[in-house]
Amino acid sequence: MDAQLRDAAQEIVGQAIRAVLPDAAVRRALAGFRPHGGRALLVAAGKAAWRMARAAVDVLGHVDGGVVITKYGHVQGRIPGVDCFEAGHPVPDENGFAATERALALVRGLTARDDVLFLLSGGASALFEKPLTDASQLQDITRQLLSGGADITEINAVRKRLSAVKGGRFALACAPAQVYAVALSDVLGDAPDVIASGPASPDASRCAEALAAAEKYVPGLPDEVRALLARETPKALDNACVQVVGSVRALCEAAARACEQLGYEPLLLTDRLCCEAREAGRFLGAIVRTHAGEGKKRAFIAGGETVVHVRGAGLGGRNQELALAAADALDGLDGCCVFSVGSDGTDGPTDAAGGYVDGGTGCALRAAGRSAQRALEENDAYHALAAVDGLIVTGPTGTNVNDVAVALVR
Amino acid sequence: MDAQLRDAAQEIVGQAIRAVLPDAAVRRALAGFRPHGGRALLVAAGKAAWRMARAAVDVLGHVDGGVVITKYGHVQGRIPGVDCFEAGHPVPDENGFAATERALALVRGLTARDDVLFLLSGGASALFEKPLTDASQLQDITRQLLSGGADITEINAVRKRLSAVKGGRFALACAPAQVYAVALSDVLGDAPDVIASGPASPDASRCAEALAAAEKYVPGLPDEVRALLARETPKALDNACVQVVGSVRALCEAAARACEQLGYEPLLLTDRLCCEAREAGRFLGAIVRTHAGEGKKRAFIAGGETVVHVRGAGLGGRNQELALAAADALDGLDGCCVFSVGSDGTDGPTDAAGGYVDGGTGCALRAAGRSAQRALEENDAYHALAAVDGLIVTGPTGTNVNDVAVALVR
Repeated sequence: MDAQLRDAAQEIVGQAIRAVLPDAAVRRALAGFRPHGGRALLVAAGKAAWRMARAAVDVLGHVDGGVVITKYGHVQGRIPGVDCFEAGHPVPDENGFAATERALALVRGLTARDDVLFLLSGGASALFEKPLTDASQLQDITRQLLSGGADITEINAVRKRLSAVKGGRFALACAPAQVYAVALSDVLGDAPDVIASGPASPDASRCAEALAAAEKYVPGLPDEVRALLARETPKALDNACVQVVGSVRALCEAAARACEQLGYEPLLLTDRLCCEAREAGRFLGAIVRTHAGEGKKRAFIAGGETVVHVRGAGLGGRNQELALAAADALDGLDGCCVFSVGSDGTDGPTDAAGGYVDGGTGCALRAAGRSAQRALEENDAYHALAAVDGLIVTGPTGTNVNDVAVALVR
Repeated sequence: MDAQLRDAAQEIVGQAIRAVLPDAAVRRALAGFRPHGGRALLVAAGKAAWRMARAAVDVLGHVDGGVVITKYGHVQGRIPGVDCFEAGHPVPDENGFAATERALALVRGLTARDDVLFLLSGGASALFEKPLTDASQLQDITRQLLSGGADITEINAVRKRLSAVKGGRFALACAPAQVYAVALSDVLGDAPDVIASGPASPDASRCAEALAAAEKYVPGLPDEVRALLARETPKALDNACVQVVGSVRALCEAAARACEQLGYEPLLLTDRLCCEAREAGRFLGAIVRTHAGEGKKRAFIAGGETVVHVRGAGLGGRNQELALAAADALDGLDGCCVFSVGSDGTDGPTDAAGGYVDGGTGCALRAAGRSAQRALEENDAYHALAAVDGLIVTGPTGTNVNDVAVALVR
């Protein structure tokens, strides 16, 4: 392993993530918030909910009530006037449903002079949920959509219609109060009705799409679910607006600046990456192999949300698979590396944010009796990378605007 | 469809392929050929064999005998002193075996003053073959390796050991005559012992690798095959040298020059692309979507040899799948396109060289009752592209240095 490159990777990851932490984003957004003079209530959902809520209460000085719903382990203390709940992600659970019910109770019976400050971040699709169908059935459907490889648009089209809060229905529940929504986007392209399944946005998806996706990934779809998928969501809302305040674009741009400071000429290839994680890694590996040894320090940056189709029984995440898949192309090369991290600091069901490989990784894997290809076949990137000091660990970051992959070449 | 972009694509494809036609390459290589004064014999194998042989005989003025082995439909006339044969590709057949036997007879009993001019091009792995095992068994094994998605290195490690000519064994058969080999490379990285399975090159692959690949992709490997895989190939040859005269790098660089002439700033991302074709297309599509509308004309170029795992019953090729897979990302964008072609002019088992998509392709597909995703699921890119004027047709080009994909953005 190249210690200097490993340090550079850690530095770039740190700078990129710091640029998209929720606090500054919320402060910026609240500069445009004009209260209507009634009660000010706060509802925050997502992996960054606690940090966004704390920043908002700091800025506002006071709220008349609030609910935070975030992932297990993400509540970091008390916030005055706000009840904080932890719940299941990516599969919704009873704690999430109960907390969402609390949020709905909080916004019931408001007047047009009241405000609901609604803070959204990645993960809110699962965390902020009141199912209209049996909860275990919703969990089954969600699980089948995720494991079948449905994209986030398909998943959300279905979930909006099986939910009392998604697809604009939460804003309807707040009416006549005004909803001021602030979103950290983990959706490529940042469409407000897609972020967190758009609880405060008119819904652009149609019943037909929801039905098509459900039929594709969920064998034996029950009739009662089919009936719910046929109930249309609001196409206009006059009591809600949504501000998108952070995104994968900002993450990529911060990574590019960090690369530049380290002397690498950055090229932002894309902030819309959505292909299979390991194939993206192979593509980046091929880019590195082509430019290695040209005598120029370059950084190729690709942000987005890749996909993993789980076939093996191993442990890993999309960033770890992406990085590990580049190891073969880099094998034996000097002065090059590929790394990829999730901005939330938790890649898949692991304690790592992502993975790192360089020209020495292949050799180190062989010495450990492992191979990148075998680990990928078993979806076991975590243990392969762990064996060669290839895990990037940040701990939960409190933000979530998707992933960034970087290839450094000199 | 954007007619101007479609024309630009055709122009870039034409210029790129013209730069790697065999004639000029052979002329360059023969400038360094010093005959030893005895007989001059010619053996040419591969998709470009006929054109390479004709150019060589033009330059030399005369040969004392020769054999050309090329793909069906690729012999374009008589060449003085040379017998031309057509045979099966990518699956070897009896015509290939018989023609290879003729080549071996031609080089039998030579002296150290004799020269064998040996012209290699893509496809020679299948076309130039004398199996050491039962021919139908070799065909079965080759078919299983190809359809299982084995990479060219794995396929060649196995085939060298089941062959009387690969892995340096043809040069041994020519001894004590000198072998002067000229190769148009279709192997990423241009390693001479990999190009056409290296009939005139010391073999870098080892028995253990061959056995591992065979066991991975060929269930129930027979014992007699296992025994052949355990027989090592020559690791040194003193009567042969290999010149690599054309490669995917040259194809990419010519594409880049053509893009530049049309006002697009070119960036050669890689000449080592080897990932799944459709995922490479999605990656290029994501790059386009990110840079579209920046007001700068840019070309992103990626050359190599992608892979298709065939699951559906449709018709297509890796270049068509790559292009079609970019259609969703480009949908609705102005002034952008992605296209990909095989330099041999025949992509998969089709009459097209590759495929083209732009911002209008999605709409055209919907109007034709088709979708890119569905066509890809069925491995039916050919019919989808055919329905929207998205096939690039060049006819067989006579060369083969792999593929180039180009994304144009303005």
